[in-house]
Amino acid sequence: MKDAEIIAVGTELLTPQRVDTNSLFVTEYLNLLGVDLVRKQVIGDDLPRLTEAISTALKRSHIVVLIGGLGPTEDDLTREAVAAAMGRKLMLSLEQESVLINRFRQINRPMAKNNLRQAYLVEGAEAMPNANGTAPGQFIYTDRGALAMLPGPPRELKTMVERELYHRLRPVVPPQVIRVRSFRITGIGESDLDTLIAPVYTKYTNPVTTVLSSPGDLFVHLKATAQTEDQADALLREVGNPIAELLGDRVYTENASEPLEGVVGRLLRKHHATVAVAESCTGGLVSSRLTDQGGSSDYFLGGYVTYCDAQKIETLGISRELIGKHSAVSEEAAKAMAEAARNKARSTFALSTTGYAGPSGGTDFDPVGTVYLGVAGPNGTRVIRVRYGSGDRLRVRLLATQASLDLLRKTLAEPIAAGLRR
Amino acid sequence: MKDAEIIAVGTELLTPQRVDTNSLFVTEYLNLLGVDLVRKQVIGDDLPRLTEAISTALKRSHIVVLIGGLGPTEDDLTREAVAAAMGRKLMLSLEQESVLINRFRQINRPMAKNNLRQAYLVEGAEAMPNANGTAPGQFIYTDRGALAMLPGPPRELKTMVERELYHRLRPVVPPQVIRVRSFRITGIGESDLDTLIAPVYTKYTNPVTTVLSSPGDLFVHLKATAQTEDQADALLREVGNPIAELLGDRVYTENASEPLEGVVGRLLRKHHATVAVAESCTGGLVSSRLTDQGGSSDYFLGGYVTYCDAQKIETLGISRELIGKHSAVSEEAAKAMAEAARNKARSTFALSTTGYAGPSGGTDFDPVGTVYLGVAGPNGTRVIRVRYGSGDRLRVRLLATQASLDLLRKTLAEPIAAGLRR
Repeated sequence: MKDAEIIAVGTELLTPQRVDTNSLFVTEYLNLLGVDLVRKQVIGDDLPRLTEAISTALKRSHIVVLIGGLGPTEDDLTREAVAAAMGRKLMLSLEQESVLINRFRQINRPMAKNNLRQAYLVEGAEAMPNANGTAPGQFIYTDRGALAMLPGPPRELKTMVERELYHRLRPVVPPQVIRVRSFRITGIGESDLDTLIAPVYTKYTNPVTTVLSSPGDLFVHLKATAQTEDQADALLREVGNPIAELLGDRVYTENASEPLEGVVGRLLRKHHATVAVAESCTGGLVSSRLTDQGGSSDYFLGGYVTYCDAQKIETLGISRELIGKHSAVSEEAAKAMAEAARNKARSTFALSTTGYAGPSGGTDFDPVGTVYLGVAGPNGTRVIRVRYGSGDRLRVRLLATQASLDLLRKTLAEPIAAGLRR
Repeated sequence: MKDAEIIAVGTELLTPQRVDTNSLFVTEYLNLLGVDLVRKQVIGDDLPRLTEAISTALKRSHIVVLIGGLGPTEDDLTREAVAAAMGRKLMLSLEQESVLINRFRQINRPMAKNNLRQAYLVEGAEAMPNANGTAPGQFIYTDRGALAMLPGPPRELKTMVERELYHRLRPVVPPQVIRVRSFRITGIGESDLDTLIAPVYTKYTNPVTTVLSSPGDLFVHLKATAQTEDQADALLREVGNPIAELLGDRVYTENASEPLEGVVGRLLRKHHATVAVAESCTGGLVSSRLTDQGGSSDYFLGGYVTYCDAQKIETLGISRELIGKHSAVSEEAAKAMAEAARNKARSTFALSTTGYAGPSGGTDFDPVGTVYLGVAGPNGTRVIRVRYGSGDRLRVRLLATQASLDLLRKTLAEPIAAGLRR
């Protein structure tokens, strides 16, 4: 198996504010090619350090990918460092010069003299066209494999990896197939998940199993390596099928890039159903998640962020007596909110959230972190009570939003009355 | 100035899903000590690679910080690698052994034999107690400065850096002060910002100026290094004051950790004012941003996510004729939405958003990316029209949300009628 390392260039990437995310995208493509990333580094804009890092990397790794430092300014040193590390010259490419001149003509802006730096290629390098910017990438065959220079702006980098780098690297690496299978899961904590599925996946080193978590959202990722797609798929079935069975309906999708609101939107569309939302403690997050999806106006009718009691009474028509008797954070209030939202918007379904996100509020019976989640639909209304650890307002809001969307997902999975748009 | 490098250990950090964020926290503390981070790396769980990386790092940098790989399993190789790189032995610490045994007794769990690995220290290392976990950190004085080993779980790492590492590193580095000044800015693009302020900051190498951007949100960060706090502050004034003047009211705060909704909340509270929101294309994001802040129920009254025309008509009482004549995406609709939200919620102010977030929709006059933003208040109603590049729904929604909050911020900065809660 071929090894790769990534060197991201830029002093700004060494500040406490910035993290290098470009390398994640590059890693994905390296993995697709069956290349193993064994090391990544961030180096500041410093010629001696950069040159030393490149020359060391060339000695030990088959593929070296440099990210950033291809801009027009004096700080952009990647070209110089590669030339120095390989003992080659930088040469002005007349072709790249005219590409640059044309580009500036197109956008009708004068070209500063500095920009000409971007027309210099390391001796023996192929230029990789940049569809979204001025700096071309560069690709060089090396004794051990290849070296690539990619621009730092993510939009430029991504297009260049897809259109230029991938097919150039393919012949450099031996044919090997990596296939992945993903499960996105909600409604279970990370350690409970691990206790459940570790007995299955720890028996295998191939596929490699990774568990990732963010609030209310878990991700199990299997990566199988083999000579052929069929072999890799067989490995994924062997480990993935028992995992799928153990997780049951906690798996909301096997599509790694489909968020929970995407699944909910797809199910609503399938049932020709619509939804409305009445939110208190989540303050608009459920609505905003649902409307994150393009085309959500097909099924999302409206949201009511009724943050104070007066709003619950006036906008939704919840009775003052109900709130007085049970409080606005109660099963009764959640039920009334969901039903009122459904009636007002004339939607097939409606969700409601009411709870104590913190930092203050709460009662002995319902301490901070308690949230009531309602769903009203053609088969009636259901309310669940969830309790999250207190002390982190944002976390409570995120978990409650996720649980609310999941409540709708599970309701949509039940047989529902003819699924007519209301 | 002393140099540092960070080596994060763990194969999972080389996947396309994971990014090392621990190093950001460590960087912050290194910078506080006046130490410059010059390189960071991620290395997988591989003993030869790790040993080589540590031995190289010890040769070139004053301070070497290792993160992760201190767990109890065979994959946790940091201790072994440091011992090998320094040519020292690993020794069982009887003190650490009893710390471990006590810890497991406390949580009433049997201690697996593997856990004893965590009681081994590199010859000459001081153990750094771990307040939140079982693996102690280790600190070793080296020829050039020091080497530290920190646990990977963020909660364990953070406490250890604060309580153990910081005071141990202090005597290793020469006294030097780093002071920072930050500007958070909205309402201007990154390249326009740079054109405006680069003539000021490029004249100085100290402070170091960094410009960071996320959609609709810019961050200018000055970092001054000097012998004393006074000298560092003087440098920050010398460069920061002209920058502040050039940016004017586009700076919404100089508090690096205060988001725009925090500033808006602070201003609303100061004026004893309240706010309501009527959203269309932003789908609940403005409400959710406003309610992100703890205590926002003091000023946020309610939100209306009127996504379809029927909702605008029924929930807000916008007239069907107005929408028929001007469309729901128009100056008139934004004005009516803001005024209706203000009247319904009886708030001091109300915001409205209506536009085409994409991917479809739009007209010749108002193509995808066009958004009307309204603000209604005691001094009347104002609507602005903004146009963002089309093609990225999420970006249009984020930019419009930011611009809507900024519109309220600027309105709150104007003299307003006595500021009575309505």
